[in-house]
Amino acid sequence: MNVVAGIDIGGTNTACGLVTDQGEVLSKEILPTRSFTDADSLVKAVSACIRQQIKDHPETLLQGIGIGAPNANPYTGTVDYAPNLSWKGIVPLKKMFEEELNLPTFITNDAKAAALGEFRFGAARGLSDFLVITLGTGLGSGLFANGQIVYGHDGFAGELGHVIVESNGRMCGCERKGCLETYCSATGIVRTYKELNPQAPENIDSKEITRRALDGEEAAREAYRKTGEMLGFALANFTAVSSPSTIILFGGLVKAGELLLKPVRESFEANLLPIYRGKISIKISELHESDAALLGAGSLLFEN
Amino acid sequence: MNVVAGIDIGGTNTACGLVTDQGEVLSKEILPTRSFTDADSLVKAVSACIRQQIKDHPETLLQGIGIGAPNANPYTGTVDYAPNLSWKGIVPLKKMFEEELNLPTFITNDAKAAALGEFRFGAARGLSDFLVITLGTGLGSGLFANGQIVYGHDGFAGELGHVIVESNGRMCGCERKGCLETYCSATGIVRTYKELNPQAPENIDSKEITRRALDGEEAAREAYRKTGEMLGFALANFTAVSSPSTIILFGGLVKAGELLLKPVRESFEANLLPIYRGKISIKISELHESDAALLGAGSLLFEN
Repeated sequence: MNVVAGIDIGGTNTACGLVTDQGEVLSKEILPTRSFTDADSLVKAVSACIRQQIKDHPETLLQGIGIGAPNANPYTGTVDYAPNLSWKGIVPLKKMFEEELNLPTFITNDAKAAALGEFRFGAARGLSDFLVITLGTGLGSGLFANGQIVYGHDGFAGELGHVIVESNGRMCGCERKGCLETYCSATGIVRTYKELNPQAPENIDSKEITRRALDGEEAAREAYRKTGEMLGFALANFTAVSSPSTIILFGGLVKAGELLLKPVRESFEANLLPIYRGKISIKISELHESDAALLGAGSLLFEN
Repeated sequence: MNVVAGIDIGGTNTACGLVTDQGEVLSKEILPTRSFTDADSLVKAVSACIRQQIKDHPETLLQGIGIGAPNANPYTGTVDYAPNLSWKGIVPLKKMFEEELNLPTFITNDAKAAALGEFRFGAARGLSDFLVITLGTGLGSGLFANGQIVYGHDGFAGELGHVIVESNGRMCGCERKGCLETYCSATGIVRTYKELNPQAPENIDSKEITRRALDGEEAAREAYRKTGEMLGFALANFTAVSSPSTIILFGGLVKAGELLLKPVRESFEANLLPIYRGKISIKISELHESDAALLGAGSLLFEN
């Protein structure tokens, strides 16, 4: 059976797995991104994982590698100045995997990979104009217009996480202030929660905040409300640019369900230009957490 | 000689003219939009103009009609709730022109028409990913991605003028507050100038402010600086979405030249995500003022 390897590199976790063209994830492994001090050691570890997965599935024939990574450039095959990775400068990630695994390799931004996954296998099947928002360590976005993913002239379109929403707002990893992802992301909600609850443990993470919110803790719920309100506002502004039919939310924060979705939808409709009101649906990814990114990374092969 | 009629309906002026597929504007006439109380009387007057232009050019054969109008929907052929026109509700403008002139008729948003004009005949020839900003009565935008104009799922993409840039900011014609076009447009700069110069005549318009700025009046120059700074900031944010190679400014305000362009470029670069810095050019339309919109409106026929 022909398969491709999908690799999803995130600020926190890196997933790799074998994917069929029917959208089945045959195998999957998660590595903690930050336990690798440089790109080279991560590439070697991921490549070893993939070799092992192929051994474990002797019925498969590996056709190629698809990679989703933050700040990845599909045109140059490099990862450029990724603020949420510890790597420095420009990293030739496509070439590094080609040298390790000696197979056709394609790379794109992790959020664009998620959008490709939703388009081919998930909630965006059959849609021409939609937006996928990934709420991970940062906030990523993958935009489809006219049935095609928007790469932009340099391959770096879709950095919605770095739209400035508060002048002189929170310091961002990109060295500017007030970027959307400093509020609406796993790390953003931690900052919001700590502001609301100064007694919060120093090392609290978004998973714990989600748990507390689902348990009914008011500060955690308020953190979700504020996150949702700001995201809804930003999405309303963004709609005025590309008018998507559907916005798909994806990533760890969506596990809070309606605690996030309700304020997003309310703030979205309240801030929307009248001609768009009531037309645009906001929903949660239909794909299992890391599967969309893996399937999307794999889809790069099916596209090319 | 085959020609098409291009019609550009703006909040202030409506232009109509005969256009060749080589980008030549054979004839052009301007009507004041607000002197017509409803869409029907404007359609009749514009149609009469076009009939006269055809009579004056007996060598031409009229192939069809292309219309650019604010809030025009290419899918339905209607103009829906245009905040800068006195028309109410949904106006079936395509059908009204078809009934008057009995020729194939296409319609799109005025700013998208300008973008089509720049793409086919102007500063965007050969570009795949670019943005045209029209600084007229309002602020319009036409976005190209992957070599195609972005219409959005409902035909209403590109309302960058209605991105909210100031919460609780200036009241906008769309009934919300703080939209970009309440600051960066002909009407926006009048509001800014009046704030800076309370002695300004009540009925001062943007043309007079441009004249004063070019003459060296400080309040008028400051109005341009503020307008440019806000536009540069908004364009930097917008770049993070679609990463265009080029942004083309178009409309009356660009007559101020560097008085507008300099603060736009400075604010743009200062607010840009580092990966985009130094890559994206901002320039002024190469087409004569109303020609881009007319040529773009005409291009609708060449495309279809």
